[in-house]
Amino acid sequence: MNYSVIRYILGWILKLEGAFMLIPFGISFIYRESNGVYLLLTAALCFALGFVFSWEKPKNSDFFAKEGFVTVSLSWIILSIMGALPFVFSGEIPRFTDALFETVSGFTTTGASILPVASALSHGMQFWRCFTHWIGGMGVLVFMLAVLPSAGGQNIYLMRAESPGPTVGKLVPRIQTTAKVLYGIYFGMTVIQFLLLLLAKMPAFDAICTTMGTAGTGGFGVQDDSIASYSPAIQNIVTVFMFLFGVNFNFYFLFLMKKFKDALCLEEVRAYFGLFLGASILITINLLSISGNFLQNFQQAAFQVSSVMTTTGFATTDFNQWPEFSKAILVLLMFCGACAGSTGGGIKISRLLIYIKSMRKDLERMVHPRSVKTLKMDGKAISKDVIHSTNIYLFIFFFLFAISVLIISLDGYDFTTNFTAVAATINNIGPGLELVGPASNYALFGDLSKYVLIFDMIVGRLEIFPMLVLLAPGTWMNRK
Amino acid sequence: MNYSVIRYILGWILKLEGAFMLIPFGISFIYRESNGVYLLLTAALCFALGFVFSWEKPKNSDFFAKEGFVTVSLSWIILSIMGALPFVFSGEIPRFTDALFETVSGFTTTGASILPVASALSHGMQFWRCFTHWIGGMGVLVFMLAVLPSAGGQNIYLMRAESPGPTVGKLVPRIQTTAKVLYGIYFGMTVIQFLLLLLAKMPAFDAICTTMGTAGTGGFGVQDDSIASYSPAIQNIVTVFMFLFGVNFNFYFLFLMKKFKDALCLEEVRAYFGLFLGASILITINLLSISGNFLQNFQQAAFQVSSVMTTTGFATTDFNQWPEFSKAILVLLMFCGACAGSTGGGIKISRLLIYIKSMRKDLERMVHPRSVKTLKMDGKAISKDVIHSTNIYLFIFFFLFAISVLIISLDGYDFTTNFTAVAATINNIGPGLELVGPASNYALFGDLSKYVLIFDMIVGRLEIFPMLVLLAPGTWMNRK
Repeated sequence: MNYSVIRYILGWILKLEGAFMLIPFGISFIYRESNGVYLLLTAALCFALGFVFSWEKPKNSDFFAKEGFVTVSLSWIILSIMGALPFVFSGEIPRFTDALFETVSGFTTTGASILPVASALSHGMQFWRCFTHWIGGMGVLVFMLAVLPSAGGQNIYLMRAESPGPTVGKLVPRIQTTAKVLYGIYFGMTVIQFLLLLLAKMPAFDAICTTMGTAGTGGFGVQDDSIASYSPAIQNIVTVFMFLFGVNFNFYFLFLMKKFKDALCLEEVRAYFGLFLGASILITINLLSISGNFLQNFQQAAFQVSSVMTTTGFATTDFNQWPEFSKAILVLLMFCGACAGSTGGGIKISRLLIYIKSMRKDLERMVHPRSVKTLKMDGKAISKDVIHSTNIYLFIFFFLFAISVLIISLDGYDFTTNFTAVAATINNIGPGLELVGPASNYALFGDLSKYVLIFDMIVGRLEIFPMLVLLAPGTWMNRK
Repeated sequence: MNYSVIRYILGWILKLEGAFMLIPFGISFIYRESNGVYLLLTAALCFALGFVFSWEKPKNSDFFAKEGFVTVSLSWIILSIMGALPFVFSGEIPRFTDALFETVSGFTTTGASILPVASALSHGMQFWRCFTHWIGGMGVLVFMLAVLPSAGGQNIYLMRAESPGPTVGKLVPRIQTTAKVLYGIYFGMTVIQFLLLLLAKMPAFDAICTTMGTAGTGGFGVQDDSIASYSPAIQNIVTVFMFLFGVNFNFYFLFLMKKFKDALCLEEVRAYFGLFLGASILITINLLSISGNFLQNFQQAAFQVSSVMTTTGFATTDFNQWPEFSKAILVLLMFCGACAGSTGGGIKISRLLIYIKSMRKDLERMVHPRSVKTLKMDGKAISKDVIHSTNIYLFIFFFLFAISVLIISLDGYDFTTNFTAVAATINNIGPGLELVGPASNYALFGDLSKYVLIFDMIVGRLEIFPMLVLLAPGTWMNRK
């Protein structure tokens, strides 16, 4: 294990976090909130630690998959711990466990909150809370790769460990350029959504916070009822942008390269769109049993499907009150997730496509034992390694899922609450059903359960393997 | 597709079912129940159809995996339809859908019932209901292989399609001998349990029915409260035998061959025992919160763990009233299931072991990319095909699971009921939680849901692939 490179990168991550924190400090300053000083204080702490960590340049630049996984996991843990401090120092979220839960929920773009009254936060803290969504959405190490001079061979391993999906989404041969393109598209779409929300007469502060929550597919609401109290126009804009941020960014890149046909043929994006439309229509019809307004039903259904599928977690209505069939659809969509290479979480559509293709091939082989077919995605063969690790991903996912449900059931809440709490955190969505439904929050759980859910959120965002490698004893033992 | 062989085998299966039905008819005769005539009538119908089907010997004996899957699936469907007729004819379960549900639940050793008052059945029908457990437990095609002269190359494909577990449990090179050994052990253990229950002063009729339910890991109860009203001695005998029938029969075969060391080293059996003990102890401790009687808690915990793990589904207490942690353990155990090569259902311990080994190997390879290791079970390498189909098994399992929960949620019951109803049927257990808990039954569901659950029970018992091959369009299209 090359400790010095890891230390060096962690130092840079801390410095970046310090720089990020200056923005919410600026917001506090504008609103003349005294609590802003705690943001400044924590930023200074981040800088100080960052400089200590990155003082000495590493001599040995060996950096492989193992180091990549460990660096990314540690980065996310340190980011979250430091990110929680302003809440604790200012007393706005006095308990450290709660502040950590909220911050991890922010960075991992989960959007699960322990705050009973979200609107009670000061503007600076509220901005920081929503800003973590934006930072975590595309990934902080990807950001580092985009803005810092290339540090050599480590880039691909960092990107692979932090980016979602079964394969790494390298758009162009150079990793740094890929990172720049990704952040360019991300920033551009964020600005467009913000402007549209302003046009729809949303207050500027609410608009920027909501936009960051949408872009990162996070879902922290500025108001206590998420975004139910805004006008239908605003809600529709959010619906569309939640959907758009859940699309594989490869799609936008191909569009920018004017390869429209290639873009429109991407299997994952087509499946994603089909699923979105199918689920929305089914729920719209099902909702007719409680309201005859077809158009309004469709609006609500499309909003909620977008929100759950992309793992954003905004709510315009308490879907806990919906009929069971609609709720079952939402619970299933929690697991599907958005596209790989987007800011969304969940298992990812591309993984599901690989499973379905594998299943078809296996059935084919049972019926015609001599048939030989390779699995293809978008016309390209999928490597056996990818298929294998995709398959084992599902087992580890459900294994961690099961253990988590078991531990949090110690708190004694009902099965639906426990099951959907884990589903909503490990898939980075936010609200679940029953006691953790959209009208409630996660404050009810004990500390042990909160740490389990914190672990699940990070595991979900980093897609399991980085955290497992971090915790595997073999990683830390030297082999001859 | 070689239709003539399939037809021929189905004919023999029908004749066997006719013969089986004469036993409950005998019971009716002893108890002087007039309803017995419907068992005789259906038996005659089975014989008649059977003779028509198997009249002409097939000329072409080509028989491969495809034919094996199709034959096994069709056999189970036909067995269930014919098996349901006595209930319908006699009016004891007047609706065909309900009778089919009960019969499929019997043959697949699920034990989920639509009867609000199980004890209301006549002795003959009750015996037939419990007898289906015994027939389905070890498999009716395996029985056919054991008693009929070998029909050549088809045996291995039939055995592979009907026997549970990722690999076929061939104890000796000849399939027919393997089938005979399996049924020999099965019959022997059944007799021992029956005698022990008689010794514990259980009424003979209850003893034989309970024994058949235990042996097949089925779980239909003769009394309305399952077996809660019997003495602790009887309950403990059932606990032990449920556990024993969930052990891989390979274990008993090695014991009979006096290879004690090999038997005790079987990884699957060790894991099965460890899981049983661990879960029982955790629940025992958790139950202290509602009762201070440690020994009684352990008795109840061991009973319920045995019952759920082996997918039997007997109940001595309404575990729906247990603390959430204990209930969560039971829900998770529903998915583990018993050993491969036993009469139990579920995902099977050996599959879980393969997943865990795969996961470890993958982590190892991430940390040390050059490490090359083969997965082994009991010292023997596991073939790549087995690993692959085990992996894809999990996806198909959860896919069917999800679709099933979705459809039955149309009936509007709560999520826990729907989730555990599907879990309890696809894993062939019987009772779930809430509205399908041990104190309730499945009569509340609509017909569509019942057919979905019927499908799940068969899919669960045959381990998915046979039914999928039966339904795959590719199976029925001729390729040049």
